[in-house]
Amino acid sequence: MKVAKFGGSSLADGPQLKRVFEIVSADPQRQIIVVSAPGKRQEDDIKVTDLLIEYAQAVITDRDYRDIVQQIKNRYHEIGEYFELNEIDLADIDQQIDHLAQKHYRSFDYLFAAFCAHGEYLNAQLIAKAFTHQGLPARFVDPRTLGFLVDDNPRNATLLEDSYQAMAEFELAVGERLIVPGFFGYTKNGDMATFSRGGSDITGAIMARAFQADLYENFTDVSAIYAANPKLVDHPQAIAQMTYDEMRELSYAGFAVFHDEAIIPAIQGQIPINIKNTNRPNDPGTMILPRQAIQNTRPVTGIANSNRFAAIYLHRYLLNKDFTRQILEILSQYGLSYEHMPSGIDDLTIILDKSLTNQEQIDHVLAAIQEQVQPDELRWIPNYGIIMIVGEGMRNRVGAMTDIVTPLKEAGISLQMVNQGASEISIMLGIQPELAAEAVQAIYHNLFQ
Amino acid sequence: MKVAKFGGSSLADGPQLKRVFEIVSADPQRQIIVVSAPGKRQEDDIKVTDLLIEYAQAVITDRDYRDIVQQIKNRYHEIGEYFELNEIDLADIDQQIDHLAQKHYRSFDYLFAAFCAHGEYLNAQLIAKAFTHQGLPARFVDPRTLGFLVDDNPRNATLLEDSYQAMAEFELAVGERLIVPGFFGYTKNGDMATFSRGGSDITGAIMARAFQADLYENFTDVSAIYAANPKLVDHPQAIAQMTYDEMRELSYAGFAVFHDEAIIPAIQGQIPINIKNTNRPNDPGTMILPRQAIQNTRPVTGIANSNRFAAIYLHRYLLNKDFTRQILEILSQYGLSYEHMPSGIDDLTIILDKSLTNQEQIDHVLAAIQEQVQPDELRWIPNYGIIMIVGEGMRNRVGAMTDIVTPLKEAGISLQMVNQGASEISIMLGIQPELAAEAVQAIYHNLFQ
Repeated sequence: MKVAKFGGSSLADGPQLKRVFEIVSADPQRQIIVVSAPGKRQEDDIKVTDLLIEYAQAVITDRDYRDIVQQIKNRYHEIGEYFELNEIDLADIDQQIDHLAQKHYRSFDYLFAAFCAHGEYLNAQLIAKAFTHQGLPARFVDPRTLGFLVDDNPRNATLLEDSYQAMAEFELAVGERLIVPGFFGYTKNGDMATFSRGGSDITGAIMARAFQADLYENFTDVSAIYAANPKLVDHPQAIAQMTYDEMRELSYAGFAVFHDEAIIPAIQGQIPINIKNTNRPNDPGTMILPRQAIQNTRPVTGIANSNRFAAIYLHRYLLNKDFTRQILEILSQYGLSYEHMPSGIDDLTIILDKSLTNQEQIDHVLAAIQEQVQPDELRWIPNYGIIMIVGEGMRNRVGAMTDIVTPLKEAGISLQMVNQGASEISIMLGIQPELAAEAVQAIYHNLFQ
Repeated sequence: MKVAKFGGSSLADGPQLKRVFEIVSADPQRQIIVVSAPGKRQEDDIKVTDLLIEYAQAVITDRDYRDIVQQIKNRYHEIGEYFELNEIDLADIDQQIDHLAQKHYRSFDYLFAAFCAHGEYLNAQLIAKAFTHQGLPARFVDPRTLGFLVDDNPRNATLLEDSYQAMAEFELAVGERLIVPGFFGYTKNGDMATFSRGGSDITGAIMARAFQADLYENFTDVSAIYAANPKLVDHPQAIAQMTYDEMRELSYAGFAVFHDEAIIPAIQGQIPINIKNTNRPNDPGTMILPRQAIQNTRPVTGIANSNRFAAIYLHRYLLNKDFTRQILEILSQYGLSYEHMPSGIDDLTIILDKSLTNQEQIDHVLAAIQEQVQPDELRWIPNYGIIMIVGEGMRNRVGAMTDIVTPLKEAGISLQMVNQGASEISIMLGIQPELAAEAVQAIYHNLFQ
């Protein structure tokens, strides 16, 4: 049995969904289909999830939302009409969209979560009907029915471990097709709570583990994962195979094709992952496998870079006498989670994920650090460029670092930060964001050409 | 006015103290003399501080300490007799040594602190008498008289900032010579509490700041600070000048000639430090100065290495969701302070100073981490080799890293850890301890020859 997950661009409109239908029909093993919300139909389009966010904002701020509601309805209508669904089915979707604004929510965060989750929730209902109407019986399954429970973080939820036991009791009939909305689960209180953005990959991986799938197919809009960002490097090599840990490091540092948290359930269940292209389903794609399943002779598998980081830098003499703990207390107090914290004797850099912070939090934290720790210097770095060089082949390899820093020296690029050794399979560099593209190119050309 | 501090080897016996006497006599500006306890007279000798530790241990465990007490007395007698001090003076020292075992102490830690502090305390008394007897009037000053107060950490104390105000009120007469014991101060409760080992350097720096000295002379047994450990590198270059920050990084990472915490008061008071050789007092030694006072064109100033570190390594998927804070709480709970904490996505290495931990603490901490965090892997690394490459010339310099890692690649040495960027003037490497000597040599030869 296979779990197949389809991303937003694969479900953006009727013709795209038709391709998905054909992929699912072609293989009776594809029994559990996890779906995203409809994505962009062309470059300047708006994703349904973003429309739902606008809708939520309008409700919270008491603005007129009729226009935005209509846009959302139109997206589902367009797909439904392509598959010639009947009026009643579409009216049911419309009603649920309208009803969103009437319901009571525990907090604004839960309101946001419920609005966003409906992108997937409604799409899965619609797709089940469309497939059935096309002659492929498919059953919509609400995560609630599966026992898919998450913790009380409405917009950055984590699956409760007990859910696996509950899901194991769900009976999947022979040949049956389930359509499961990705991205969200339910709290014990019954509220919808979403994973972080792009979290349908996580749902797919959880389903694959829960149902002990033979393969987790992750359908997207590229034919493979490439060794570097194709926007920066001309025709980078496709990666045929890599390990779970390599994928996790690369996706964390900017390879957006697969959500970094989605690897964990696959590792726990030892489920192979196949990244495939909806538009070229016969391309082999990229296989993500346990380490022992891979014959690896490459020194480096991929080079990722990301602009999603910021940093707090501080200098204080005798910093390590308990101040670091105080600083972490402050971060915790304001709910600011950090990513890395390289330290010198008297210096500390706290690297943050910008998408998980806001300016108000930062201001509070900086003020609290200033008051409590009285640093000699305290600096906010709003953009902190990160490059991550990843490869199982780097374990204990002599010269791994040389091959990375020599091309940078030749290109005249200085390093702001180097972090190697916490992870044995990656080296993390801090580079001025405006030099990151050039740095990736220099490293790629030295390692892959 | 100058503060001159003399280390244990400069005060090990009568002839050595005679040289110190000549140095002090030669310059009327040398008014405040900070002294250590008598050190080793030859390679296989025992320092008085170590004898005092044995004495303390015997008292705590109720063992016979008559022999060890006699050894301690002999050391002071030997010096006193060389300067032909009278019986009464020496009997006074003896009495204080005997009395140590009779006194009441707040805890074993305070007992240890008081015993250790007496190495300096008695030596300063003896030296004041010897100098006076030689015709150079000198006054012993107890730190208590100065208002030299420290916090309640009996064996790793920190000066209370208020002490500077108190000391500023102390009147130093024109031409007067004070002999001040290094290494300890008094808590507000009146108990002796010591700095960490080697802390007489700290006392010297505090005195230099408190009395706004023109120069802090630190007399030891080498003619300069060298760019690398002379035990590892053949005739390394002497460093004529370096900045405070360079010295601090180098001494932290193994340059034992000067205590790393002793730089802070010098920085705060902007007091130049001169490291000099008691046995060759006319050699210029090494000057440690504010950055603006130095014309620097070197890429690297020095290469230090240290064996005093150990590490805890752990791997856990989704580590950064609050687990790091939990781990720091555990460390704090068991009083274990850490030095650095390089992190990957799911990996964390906690680097510790072995001299500040004990096996029992480590066992507790490992057990607590295992239980609370449930890592996928948890490993204790009892020896973690650190090499630190330091130089103001590395700020934003392109290729700094290449010049360091290329010789290691050529020598076939792989890196366990690289930490650059938290401090702008240093790069820290983790190397298997058995390869550290070879690594220092390779880097030194590439950078200095």
